Amino acid sequence: MSPWKAAQPGDPLPTVDTPALLLDLDAFERNLQRMAQAMSATQVRLRPHAKSHKCPEIARRQVALGAVGICCQKVSEAAVFVDAGIDDILVTNEIVGAAKLQRLAQLATRARIGVLVDHVSQVRALASAARAAQATVDVYVEVDVGGNRCGTVSEESAVRLAQMIADTSCLRFAGLQCYHGPAQHLRSPQQRGAAIINAALTASSTRAAIESRGIPVPRVTGGGTGTFLLERDSGAFDEVQPGSYVFMDRDYADNRRSAGGIAFEHALFVRTTVMSRPSASRVVVDAGLKASSIDSGMPAVWQQPELRYIKAADEHGLLSVSAISTPALGDALMLVPGHCDPTVNLYDELVCFRGDVVEAVWPIAARGALL
Amino acid sequence: MSPWKAAQPGDPLPTVDTPALLLDLDAFERNLQRMAQAMSATQVRLRPHAKSHKCPEIARRQVALGAVGICCQKVSEAAVFVDAGIDDILVTNEIVGAAKLQRLAQLATRARIGVLVDHVSQVRALASAARAAQATVDVYVEVDVGGNRCGTVSEESAVRLAQMIADTSCLRFAGLQCYHGPAQHLRSPQQRGAAIINAALTASSTRAAIESRGIPVPRVTGGGTGTFLLERDSGAFDEVQPGSYVFMDRDYADNRRSAGGIAFEHALFVRTTVMSRPSASRVVVDAGLKASSIDSGMPAVWQQPELRYIKAADEHGLLSVSAISTPALGDALMLVPGHCDPTVNLYDELVCFRGDVVEAVWPIAARGALL
Repeated sequence: MSPWKAAQPGDPLPTVDTPALLLDLDAFERNLQRMAQAMSATQVRLRPHAKSHKCPEIARRQVALGAVGICCQKVSEAAVFVDAGIDDILVTNEIVGAAKLQRLAQLATRARIGVLVDHVSQVRALASAARAAQATVDVYVEVDVGGNRCGTVSEESAVRLAQMIADTSCLRFAGLQCYHGPAQHLRSPQQRGAAIINAALTASSTRAAIESRGIPVPRVTGGGTGTFLLERDSGAFDEVQPGSYVFMDRDYADNRRSAGGIAFEHALFVRTTVMSRPSASRVVVDAGLKASSIDSGMPAVWQQPELRYIKAADEHGLLSVSAISTPALGDALMLVPGHCDPTVNLYDELVCFRGDVVEAVWPIAARGALL
Repeated sequence: MSPWKAAQPGDPLPTVDTPALLLDLDAFERNLQRMAQAMSATQVRLRPHAKSHKCPEIARRQVALGAVGICCQKVSEAAVFVDAGIDDILVTNEIVGAAKLQRLAQLATRARIGVLVDHVSQVRALASAARAAQATVDVYVEVDVGGNRCGTVSEESAVRLAQMIADTSCLRFAGLQCYHGPAQHLRSPQQRGAAIINAALTASSTRAAIESRGIPVPRVTGGGTGTFLLERDSGAFDEVQPGSYVFMDRDYADNRRSAGGIAFEHALFVRTTVMSRPSASRVVVDAGLKASSIDSGMPAVWQQPELRYIKAADEHGLLSVSAISTPALGDALMLVPGHCDPTVNLYDELVCFRGDVVEAVWPIAARGALL
């Protein structure tokens, strides 16, 4: 990592070194409030996904505002948050391998830990690890509700797994994970609505099939930033898992908002400097794809729609120049990342500012927690 | 970062936790030897680019095999390598901002440091920083030889910059940076050849224009893994800067090799585990785009061409299944990253193996050194 920091608390914003990952605390706090408000009038629980931020400070604020706990995607990520004092974590992933399961079970002796399964062999391995650690693990059956990734693809297999978990000591059948990933990024509210109607139907039908065997289904959980209002209002979900709402990114902003949608604000930025102006038509900035992930497209230039970030190399970004805006060598720009999650994962620290001053620097403690 | 490591020296390969970044030491050492051999019979110097590996252990091995030093892309990256004992580093980038230039100048009191300029204001700021640090910095004029990124776009401006550097105390005019980035990835040898012929013509003509003013041009440097043999043999270059050859990646392997081309081997892998097999047609692995960068396309599945990695989510990879190969839940696979540089930048450590045993774990010390 860099031998020095981009900024210290108290620094004026213009002195922050670049590229750096910045959090606008006012916008961030408004995003947290908007989410808390959206969930407060309902019986549906909020369990935000921490894979987006990987930052214990943010998780603590989410819990303080009513979240029941957090989601993680990796066991090592969950370990970082348990170490930071978060005591209820759902690992929204199938975990395979004895070493990982042993660690997961150990975490379950220190916090409430949930995990997903979509195959009987995972249940067996998990039971063995939980018994060895003398732990009890919450186990959710992941149901494929249209994401075409993990999850059971028949009610029969979901029922079989639920039965097996319910029959296994050290495992607690906790419910169904019904997350529809691709639906988050469908651009029109109609498309997202149709996808989540189907997801809710599959979830409810699977729940009914399991309960018809006399096995209670404590919880159906799922939903992300693009669709969580739909899951919230579906009647099929007890819990939602949005992550990106704390930051927002260019890709989520490209979704057309539904009539009742919430206007989460961009709070996450990559601050960058114009490092080369070799000709009138060319602007090069010091933030490339190692500074702002391009898997979901290029970053946007904040509050300067006339400037377009058109090409990313490892450490260079090329901007198009318009007649009305030609940033000069040394000018700083703020980029809105195309995709917040993998962008956050490129940084060790989040430089938090309010107005024109750096207020705090938060460690992205679970950055690179891949295991 | 992860609270635990993927592997320890002495571990058998099958026990390495996933996803992990692996280096096949035999293949890696053959790549280093091939490069040393390719350069040994020429007067052209090798200055490998360390932005690909960010790993002091690898830089030391490159220097031990004849490299004159290394290239870096960021000042903070260079600082990591100076701390590790590398004493000749060219930062192949324009550096803008007083804080960065001060740090660069400080490094130049501890090692031979070069840097690029393509604007007079950069020369002035650099001179000021070098004087304040009582350092002497090697300064190269970057010439746009077809990459359409940074670099002077007229001989006149290159000459003016060279003159200005030569006239400035604390700065040493060291030559021309003539790197053609896009040429590295042109698929046919003919396309690459045509691009580098033009680059060499521009380089030579710019050199002649500067020397015609009585200013010696000590060195023309440039070239990457895709084209360095062309620069080596062009007569226009004194030094080449390949980086990816130590690892190779899927994207470079997609280049069609020229008749005299060198068969560098894949030495870098992302080890991954099949974590979900929800149906006969679906294989999900635990390495997504936070484990293997997809900016240059999907990773390949090593030695299993019948399997295709078709889609990456943050922490999931979806494989196509063929009739002749259906990996089982828990099976480990090796992926060849689409692009080595940003993939390496996702990891803190490189798990180095020989045969079936982990021999060493090398810190990727400059991972995340963005400043």
